[in-house]
Amino acid sequence: MTAPTVLRLRADDTLAQRLARSAALRAEGFALRTADVAGWLTQRARAHHFRVERIALNDLDGWFFATDTGNLHHHTGRFFSIEGIDVNHNEGAIRRWQQPMIRQPEVGILGILAKEFDGVLHFLLQAKMEPGNRNLLQLSPTVQATHSNYTGAHRGTPVKYLEYFTDPSRGTVLTDVLQSEHGSWFYRKSNRNIVMETVDDVPVDDDFCWLTLGQIGELLRYDNVVNMDARTVLASCPVTSAEPGALNTDMELRSWFTVERSRHSLTAERVPLADIEEWKRSDFTLGRDDGRYFRLVAVAVEAGNREVTGWSQPLFEPTGIGVSAFLFRHFGGVPHLLVQAKVEAGFLDTVELAPTVQCTPGNWAHLPEPLRPYFLDVVRVAGPDRVRYAAVHSEEGGRFLNAESRYLFVEADEAQAPLDPPTGFRWATPGQLNNLAQHGHYLNVQARTLLACLNAGTVRLDPTR
Amino acid sequence: MTAPTVLRLRADDTLAQRLARSAALRAEGFALRTADVAGWLTQRARAHHFRVERIALNDLDGWFFATDTGNLHHHTGRFFSIEGIDVNHNEGAIRRWQQPMIRQPEVGILGILAKEFDGVLHFLLQAKMEPGNRNLLQLSPTVQATHSNYTGAHRGTPVKYLEYFTDPSRGTVLTDVLQSEHGSWFYRKSNRNIVMETVDDVPVDDDFCWLTLGQIGELLRYDNVVNMDARTVLASCPVTSAEPGALNTDMELRSWFTVERSRHSLTAERVPLADIEEWKRSDFTLGRDDGRYFRLVAVAVEAGNREVTGWSQPLFEPTGIGVSAFLFRHFGGVPHLLVQAKVEAGFLDTVELAPTVQCTPGNWAHLPEPLRPYFLDVVRVAGPDRVRYAAVHSEEGGRFLNAESRYLFVEADEAQAPLDPPTGFRWATPGQLNNLAQHGHYLNVQARTLLACLNAGTVRLDPTR
Repeated sequence: MTAPTVLRLRADDTLAQRLARSAALRAEGFALRTADVAGWLTQRARAHHFRVERIALNDLDGWFFATDTGNLHHHTGRFFSIEGIDVNHNEGAIRRWQQPMIRQPEVGILGILAKEFDGVLHFLLQAKMEPGNRNLLQLSPTVQATHSNYTGAHRGTPVKYLEYFTDPSRGTVLTDVLQSEHGSWFYRKSNRNIVMETVDDVPVDDDFCWLTLGQIGELLRYDNVVNMDARTVLASCPVTSAEPGALNTDMELRSWFTVERSRHSLTAERVPLADIEEWKRSDFTLGRDDGRYFRLVAVAVEAGNREVTGWSQPLFEPTGIGVSAFLFRHFGGVPHLLVQAKVEAGFLDTVELAPTVQCTPGNWAHLPEPLRPYFLDVVRVAGPDRVRYAAVHSEEGGRFLNAESRYLFVEADEAQAPLDPPTGFRWATPGQLNNLAQHGHYLNVQARTLLACLNAGTVRLDPTR
Repeated sequence: MTAPTVLRLRADDTLAQRLARSAALRAEGFALRTADVAGWLTQRARAHHFRVERIALNDLDGWFFATDTGNLHHHTGRFFSIEGIDVNHNEGAIRRWQQPMIRQPEVGILGILAKEFDGVLHFLLQAKMEPGNRNLLQLSPTVQATHSNYTGAHRGTPVKYLEYFTDPSRGTVLTDVLQSEHGSWFYRKSNRNIVMETVDDVPVDDDFCWLTLGQIGELLRYDNVVNMDARTVLASCPVTSAEPGALNTDMELRSWFTVERSRHSLTAERVPLADIEEWKRSDFTLGRDDGRYFRLVAVAVEAGNREVTGWSQPLFEPTGIGVSAFLFRHFGGVPHLLVQAKVEAGFLDTVELAPTVQCTPGNWAHLPEPLRPYFLDVVRVAGPDRVRYAAVHSEEGGRFLNAESRYLFVEADEAQAPLDPPTGFRWATPGQLNNLAQHGHYLNVQARTLLACLNAGTVRLDPTR
């Protein structure tokens, strides 16, 4: 029996055009001019009292190291914990190690509210303080909330605009996908990456402003302005790239990914933090004698515009600046990025697609040249004629302290990045990666930052001549 | 610089048409007539010496219960092990339990070789014995191999046709995706589901035959002929359905899935098999006093055409026959299936999409009516006018003994299956589910069996008038 129901087109063909129109508006939108955003951020910072200072691990308020395991927990059992993991991998330069990991089984919401003004999509971003950011305030999604935030574990003020992301009837979903966070630091963490469009008349709070995709793209040229959460949400926006073809069909690319995910054997077993090998706890840090990778530290925060006005928390502090770079080339006139199927111990399933180079170079300096990351030197020696994009961005400032990476797009040639790349690498077009980003756990968070720069028109990969 | 490289279309538009052509050929193909397949299977069974008998758990050859944990392992450390898990879930009728689980961290290959004969795609299926099948021999993929099989842990004969699935240069990949297995019995198991097309002249071994998609579809009308592994591979074939629209856009469907995956909180911690609550070991079984769910048993196998000629192994034996049914309705003339976001403890990530009803009714008989599975009664009382398809199929006969489920498509109306279904259920079109099956871990193995019946034209969901 046929019910008289109105069907809808399965895909909204107009969305890609609407995103392109928003990306084309770069100097100004409905609200702030792009050039005025830096001043607005400074003004928002002044309006609040933000102070972050390092404290001793034992001075963490509300947190405790469990007597049996040495794991670091919040007294409520919520938020997140720091535990140990023991990792075994069947290949690579380092095949067995132990390390601290952040365990936060709950799924957070990274949501950007969208609305058309004068026929152009705008995105509501927030000037948000995160204690781990060197400059504290960056542009973040409309809502950036852990489950503890939005169910009230903070006992603070309600999360603004949250209702748009918990009640589907409040708008039209433009993207909504579970994506991983840093697999080297988080144990199987994922967050919802959502863009919701509304036609409501939305009151704009002092710490929020509407920007076009093009304006955000321009701001991505600057260091430490657009935060990681905003970048990853924008990476999942379904833009389209006009690509007449690709080196590999979509099916071949997915098949290669399936093979890569299958061939790696990785176990990451939870172990007590107190027992992990080569890590030592002192008053202010839990770290390694060789100074590599990262250390666990603690900070006390005073803040005015957060859900609560003051708190202390642990953070991971990397011991060097990272490099995340896509090498790109043109084949048949179409730009291709060299993606890497990268193993990270905290991933839900062995590998995700990463930039060509993703590492903290200092962590590899002690190893002989053949064991260092592929293509790192190609990126390191690239002159300005080859560097199409370079900016320093912060990783999640709510969990990481001064965790900065230099993000680059670097043009390469056959000698530097061959058509037939080493095992674990494959050429893919921006359009192919954008399609994969509509599904969870294909692209890692670093690749998504670079993809956001493509989606927002920050970098164009046109041939140089 | 632009290299002179020939690009390819990202998607092969002709594949869906070629699959449709193959599905249209139902009575005969290039080789066996469909009507002769049953006889051929009987003949293949006679050509081998297959004997399976139950043995005591302690008589398992090469297997041992570890003294510390009671976990059941193979002496090589390979194949799989039986361990305990402790499950906690934040909703449902039963929120905490312990049970045995099969742990097999390696990724297996389920591969079907395809080739055109007279312009029509044929698929090379194998008459394969699996000790857990009631009728022992069923049609299976060309290659059905665990990592232990194809890396020689069996010390048997090499796996036939394996090279087509380990060397991508041997053919064209039509589908290749990592899919889950039974989440109630396997701990985070996934297998590669592959179809590879070749133009080689392929010598056909006695136990193999070429069949069209339509022939396989006809064979899916019969009980226990097409095995689970063949069904799941066929479910991933990218057929297309001509659908003018759907109740929910693709984006809304994925967003709902994201919400469902996020809202469930589930932990499944490994615990020693010796310690799991309510399970007791006797000479021949490890099971529960109340007889529910399943029991661990052991069999000895004598076989002629397997990689080795005799072995013994543990199997899980369910204590009742399962029901897996999609309710369907037409909206705006387009068939829609009522999918369920179902939690299974062994899934990689909380939920996958399952049939409307998926349960073993006997396991729920002790619970009060409101706690029993939704829609079970709608399926149970459906008369022949509503049952569009029903057949009994076996689950993986290499791990499960007499694990049979009745698979159904049942037409429903608004009173039985409302347009606005309960939380955890959503209407989706066959085309939408087929698109999701191109990616891993959206559809569970039971849903994929039913999807295979649609892909192969076994069941048509046309309006009855």
